[in-house]
Amino acid sequence: MALIVQKFGGSSVADAEKIERVAWIIAEKYSEGNDMVVVLSAQGDTTDDLLAKAMEINPNPSKREMDMLLSAGEQMSVALMAMQLEKLGLPVVSLTGWQVGMQTNTDYSNARIKAVSGERVRAELDRRRIVLVAGFQGVNSYDDITTLGRGGSDTSAVAMAVALNADLCQIYTDVEGVFTCDPRKVPGAVKLEEITYDEMLELASLGAQVLHNRSVEMAKRYNVKLEVLSSYVRKPGTKVKGVINVEQSKISGVAIDSNVAQIALMGLTDQPGVAFRVFRTLSQEKINVDIILQSSVGRSETKDISFTVARSDMERAVEVLKENQQMVGFKDISMTDKISKVSIVGAGMMSSPGVAALMFESLYDAKVNIGMISTSEIKISVIVDEKDAERAMSSIHRRFFEA
Amino acid sequence: MALIVQKFGGSSVADAEKIERVAWIIAEKYSEGNDMVVVLSAQGDTTDDLLAKAMEINPNPSKREMDMLLSAGEQMSVALMAMQLEKLGLPVVSLTGWQVGMQTNTDYSNARIKAVSGERVRAELDRRRIVLVAGFQGVNSYDDITTLGRGGSDTSAVAMAVALNADLCQIYTDVEGVFTCDPRKVPGAVKLEEITYDEMLELASLGAQVLHNRSVEMAKRYNVKLEVLSSYVRKPGTKVKGVINVEQSKISGVAIDSNVAQIALMGLTDQPGVAFRVFRTLSQEKINVDIILQSSVGRSETKDISFTVARSDMERAVEVLKENQQMVGFKDISMTDKISKVSIVGAGMMSSPGVAALMFESLYDAKVNIGMISTSEIKISVIVDEKDAERAMSSIHRRFFEA
Repeated sequence: MALIVQKFGGSSVADAEKIERVAWIIAEKYSEGNDMVVVLSAQGDTTDDLLAKAMEINPNPSKREMDMLLSAGEQMSVALMAMQLEKLGLPVVSLTGWQVGMQTNTDYSNARIKAVSGERVRAELDRRRIVLVAGFQGVNSYDDITTLGRGGSDTSAVAMAVALNADLCQIYTDVEGVFTCDPRKVPGAVKLEEITYDEMLELASLGAQVLHNRSVEMAKRYNVKLEVLSSYVRKPGTKVKGVINVEQSKISGVAIDSNVAQIALMGLTDQPGVAFRVFRTLSQEKINVDIILQSSVGRSETKDISFTVARSDMERAVEVLKENQQMVGFKDISMTDKISKVSIVGAGMMSSPGVAALMFESLYDAKVNIGMISTSEIKISVIVDEKDAERAMSSIHRRFFEA
Repeated sequence: MALIVQKFGGSSVADAEKIERVAWIIAEKYSEGNDMVVVLSAQGDTTDDLLAKAMEINPNPSKREMDMLLSAGEQMSVALMAMQLEKLGLPVVSLTGWQVGMQTNTDYSNARIKAVSGERVRAELDRRRIVLVAGFQGVNSYDDITTLGRGGSDTSAVAMAVALNADLCQIYTDVEGVFTCDPRKVPGAVKLEEITYDEMLELASLGAQVLHNRSVEMAKRYNVKLEVLSSYVRKPGTKVKGVINVEQSKISGVAIDSNVAQIALMGLTDQPGVAFRVFRTLSQEKINVDIILQSSVGRSETKDISFTVARSDMERAVEVLKENQQMVGFKDISMTDKISKVSIVGAGMMSSPGVAALMFESLYDAKVNIGMISTSEIKISVIVDEKDAERAMSSIHRRFFEA
């Protein structure tokens, strides 16, 4: 007997048939004697439909009203699931964000959780009810409804697990777990039994969209035992935790991130403060920079700086740099979004100095030219031509996992 | 400058275009300097769509979860209207039932309002914001969402008007006001400038579905100035208040109620307590009885009792009476739902003894046979054959209003 928090995403509850399938998953765990708290997203396309309705009325609505609108989606979702569980004869209650005391800050549409009171949930669990919680939403100090931004329901689930000191937090998705590589692109991709929070964070930020970063960060901070598993296949998923047996593999996965663009500033004067001026200009515009590469060409008095940003930020970054060309002090600027980032992630990498060499060798085998390189303690990323990215990923994956 | 509560029904906010139309009505009153509180129903078919979704999953869901589901409809509606008003550059905030402190009892799906705290609304009005309130919903002492049952949004509006001591409560519908007769059926129907609460109550219960009874009862109790008017036509509507100039007309309207069925019990022993046993049996089943007619046939030792019930209750009423035939003590039972109730309503009726005669004469002119008759201080109702009902109504209307 344990307290289990489960989370099901929008595609898992998209219609009556899927709702019934999920209900049986919940019922099984409940009938084993576990206390069940289940966080749900809005059904299938509900959120997109509501967004479209809003846009038709006002293309630029306030975030407060958008949260008011969108949060209705999860409310409908938990009510419908409650009805399904009632049909199975199970005691159940559905609760909204404000009803479970999911207190957030006032940052509408991207609110951060400040505290979860959880009293109501505990009282309902004491009555042996299955508690369904509307994900993605909270309530702020004005008693206004807020939403938690992208991946918000994952974060709701982890926050509930923290507040209730749950034994396990299961995130159900449409994949069977975390794979060494995107299984749709690399047939040899292998499901991982376990992965560390840090690896998961790197993989998520690299575009392996299984869990949202904020939920993993919260799970890491409070040491919540996470499990990623499929709503469709009854198999153990991937466990996400603090420490894993790193001997099992030096690296955990290979990922492509296509949401990346490169900007190059040429002819910067080779003086202190130049890099500072470049990146302060960008940060004032809230543009995040990922990889940075600086080169001095020979004995020249100028240098070049290249860096990557999210594709959606590229045009704006170039614009703001051009506006400040005099102050920043560069001769020329170029940009491209025809690139991808290919990365390997592994907590076991640090103790294995040969990993980088092996990665570069496999890229050489695949005749892939490397643009930029970036490394961290558990990650090596390279920027390559967009058209080479999948070939690069496959070649790396073959070298590390299919030997 | 006044505090005005407005209410718009589901058809008035069914799509983006209609939302814009309503926004202009609100904007006009606001820009005249009035404090505006606007109660909205769910958009068009939203409630029906949600009901259908629920039925697909569970034909017999708990009322608590149904309230959780349906209340999302009004929440979406107020958020979308807020976005429209934002587009017009107006300060606005949308609020749910729990946010405005609409406290109800725990009778899910048909909750009664216990109190409205209204603090939040007052604070928002002080900031000169237009306050949009999700109708039809409240919150009970468990912090659960409740809904107010049929006509609930009208009741929400009147309750807000009471709580805020509003100067006027305008109920916008798809008709221009209260008519002397159903204008779709009787071309000569005339819009009333004003009508008393009591007349409105009788008309509503007779099927003139302009305002729900509960809202009128509440308006009467707290003397809220009501006005019924059209969302589509910019004309004064009908004012509903305590006292009107009854000289203007002896009667205010003629109405048909088709939701009526007649049950006759024959051969009851002519002893005290018989009627009591009949109607206690029905009231224990929560079956409401409207008109009752008792007759003794000649010097017989038996008597007959006829009464009317809502059509949906007919079968059940007969069933429960048959089950208790011995105890109630009747020989035979018959039923029919091929009847209608035609009524005239008027606060001026009491002081005009000729009204009933005029009504019966106009029925005679139209060759309509009268089944049962029932009278109250401000109403005369007759039961007629269903096929005669519209002819009866037209004839009565001609006599009283088209002379």
